[in-house]
Amino acid sequence: MSKQHRVVIIGGGFGGLSAARVLKSAPVEVTLIDRRNYHLFQPLLYQIATGSLSPGDIASPLRGVLSRQQNTRVLMGEVENIDPVQKHVLLADGATFEYDSLIVAAGSRSFYYGHENWREWAPSLKNVDEAVNIRHKILYAFEVAERLADPAQRREWLTFIIIGGGATGVELAGAIAEISRQTLKHDFRSIHPEDAQIILIDGGERVLSAFPEDLSKKASNALARLGVQVKLGLMVQDIDKEGLTIQSQQGTYRMPAKTVIWAGGVTASQFGNTLAVRTNAETDRSGRIKVTPQLTIPGYPDIYVIGDLASAVDAKGKPLPGLAQVAMQGGAYAAKAITRKAGGKPQPPPFKYFDKGTLAVIGRWSAVADAFGVHLSGYPAWLVWAFIHLMYIVEFQSRILVFIQWAIQDLTFNRSARLITGSAATDFNFNKEVSAVATNPAENAKIALKA
Amino acid sequence: MSKQHRVVIIGGGFGGLSAARVLKSAPVEVTLIDRRNYHLFQPLLYQIATGSLSPGDIASPLRGVLSRQQNTRVLMGEVENIDPVQKHVLLADGATFEYDSLIVAAGSRSFYYGHENWREWAPSLKNVDEAVNIRHKILYAFEVAERLADPAQRREWLTFIIIGGGATGVELAGAIAEISRQTLKHDFRSIHPEDAQIILIDGGERVLSAFPEDLSKKASNALARLGVQVKLGLMVQDIDKEGLTIQSQQGTYRMPAKTVIWAGGVTASQFGNTLAVRTNAETDRSGRIKVTPQLTIPGYPDIYVIGDLASAVDAKGKPLPGLAQVAMQGGAYAAKAITRKAGGKPQPPPFKYFDKGTLAVIGRWSAVADAFGVHLSGYPAWLVWAFIHLMYIVEFQSRILVFIQWAIQDLTFNRSARLITGSAATDFNFNKEVSAVATNPAENAKIALKA
Repeated sequence: MSKQHRVVIIGGGFGGLSAARVLKSAPVEVTLIDRRNYHLFQPLLYQIATGSLSPGDIASPLRGVLSRQQNTRVLMGEVENIDPVQKHVLLADGATFEYDSLIVAAGSRSFYYGHENWREWAPSLKNVDEAVNIRHKILYAFEVAERLADPAQRREWLTFIIIGGGATGVELAGAIAEISRQTLKHDFRSIHPEDAQIILIDGGERVLSAFPEDLSKKASNALARLGVQVKLGLMVQDIDKEGLTIQSQQGTYRMPAKTVIWAGGVTASQFGNTLAVRTNAETDRSGRIKVTPQLTIPGYPDIYVIGDLASAVDAKGKPLPGLAQVAMQGGAYAAKAITRKAGGKPQPPPFKYFDKGTLAVIGRWSAVADAFGVHLSGYPAWLVWAFIHLMYIVEFQSRILVFIQWAIQDLTFNRSARLITGSAATDFNFNKEVSAVATNPAENAKIALKA
Repeated sequence: MSKQHRVVIIGGGFGGLSAARVLKSAPVEVTLIDRRNYHLFQPLLYQIATGSLSPGDIASPLRGVLSRQQNTRVLMGEVENIDPVQKHVLLADGATFEYDSLIVAAGSRSFYYGHENWREWAPSLKNVDEAVNIRHKILYAFEVAERLADPAQRREWLTFIIIGGGATGVELAGAIAEISRQTLKHDFRSIHPEDAQIILIDGGERVLSAFPEDLSKKASNALARLGVQVKLGLMVQDIDKEGLTIQSQQGTYRMPAKTVIWAGGVTASQFGNTLAVRTNAETDRSGRIKVTPQLTIPGYPDIYVIGDLASAVDAKGKPLPGLAQVAMQGGAYAAKAITRKAGGKPQPPPFKYFDKGTLAVIGRWSAVADAFGVHLSGYPAWLVWAFIHLMYIVEFQSRILVFIQWAIQDLTFNRSARLITGSAATDFNFNKEVSAVATNPAENAKIALKA
């Protein structure tokens, strides 16, 4: 018996995990490497950031998911480099792994257009720690506002700006609006949470630009009904602790806000960049690697690139979007191609993406959906969204709990996971920053304490 | 109509929240101040640390719990000082609050007997962030061990030491044993998680010293069956990154371990210390404030001290333990006394603790219980434990989800919340610390990368 074909998969997201699962009964030896020990159901990450769900609800330990798959081992580690000729990958901790076939599903990361210093004041929503951090910022802002006496200061703390009008931005804006209008309605005594300003800004002409125009319009209207101000055609010039500097056709001006969230651009992961350099691969303007119709890097038929890191095109030459569906189908395709290779069979026909449609949720019982030419919005779209997401979550780890949690929340508007944990960059020191604190009026002098 | 009686409650734990709720319809103005925005169901904190539950499952936002209580406001802030004569408390951020009656339910914190540097290597389990940190340490240790080739190094990473044989220590040890023996059974390819050593050490003669002797014995046996080594009569002399230095009758020796958890002593919270100094109150050797039979500080009939911070005695002069039950009954008593005071009525008779018994859980379907002179152990005790805890959780926020989650876990041994998030002090750098890494054997040389 010959030596087994060694498959290394980098990344345990939708693409990598899908590939690993399809390789379950293949005569290969699989090593899945991820920086984290869990698979994350990324489309619901905004619900962690807005206190609807806990991390454990949408993340599944990779070892658990793959524990019964005897040909697969999971390793926690960060892949840093590759030798595509000797066929090795190198981990940050110095370990090396040889491969016969490599599947790179290393995903994307948020991109601040060269302004890395913005990250501190406008966190993005790519992983669990960031989501918990954003949750902290949002909820903490209400706590600070409750303690402030000065209306102008209150207003700054009750202004929430989301940058980027894609699905994540729309979902976040809708959820924050619901928090302020519904969840926290009865919770404060000095402020009215419903006075909070939620502003969604985008540089383009409409939100959800990946959707058909009529659905963008409907999403905008739904957001407005929730209380979100949608501002288009604005460019961010700077972000600091006190808010944004905005550039528009009307000139440059300031937008004060203590809470800013980045739902803007993405770019290739760090390892994606390295891979492109090592293989002389072409990249698109988002840093994604242009792959062959077989999803491999030109000149390296053993290296598959799938998911957010891959720049693939559909039959009409249109680039495929960075969606879970694309990643999963790409992972399954790569796995099948490798199985054939390991069995000495000819390669399969080129990858063909089967588009089941796209969805974005706006709020409770409100979403937009575009599938097979049918445009849905409002409640019907939300039902489709809820159904599809639940199906996947249940598939990943019998997470019926999420469903129950949603049901309770939808009836009560309660968000039980609205905990302020960890620490965030905007944590506030009243002592230093506030002139007057709204407590017992006229009693703000410090107590002269007796020794 | 005269000005309303102002009640300030410090702390939103069992004692403070219970007091606030009892004051619901009293003709008083309540301000509840807590450092965190949530009430925590502390008895289940060990289940966060061991990946069974997510923080959102056992924590409820204080504002949510009290939102419909019109006479009550909740503030997030840290009380730092008090003027018991002028009747003010002072927050760390400079705000002051006047009170007519004060309820101090500021709890306890972990105590390292003067060795604060031990905290870094032996975290304790008092809040959500610490619990997530401990979870990180435990799960990460298995990940590192899986990557190591050297058996001695592996052994150090697979050794878990819990210091302190009280209820928390017993519960943690039992849960870690179950993780290694059951949950992770099929998850690794290089190590056998069931080889992990779980060591529970205590300076005394038996575990659960607050329980009757026969139940201590039963708990020890149950722990042994789960694979926990119980080592008694040992004193910790030092804790560092590599493990413990132990002092025993046999002399001084080292106990190497990469994961050490502190379930040892507690002392009064920081504000508790300050309060004792400001009021010249007597404290016991754990720093708890000795209170009158009315739960007030001698000489300050307007300051009630309840819960873990109070040193109260029962009818026989025996000190009351630091249990949720004691705190809740104390909170209710203080609230009733204040209601009478605000209504101009005479004070109630002295506080009397109604002991419903004590419980400690050891593992799945295993616990010990001592109630009304009846000693239970094993499955019957576990049923009592599960029933009581669920009742309280459901009371606090219709948390039927916890029940469902437990049911699933008890049938499958799965722990869905075993996520490694945040960062912990023991995070590992293979590069620096390990000579040989167990990957592709004989392939540990770094890749000579082409420019």
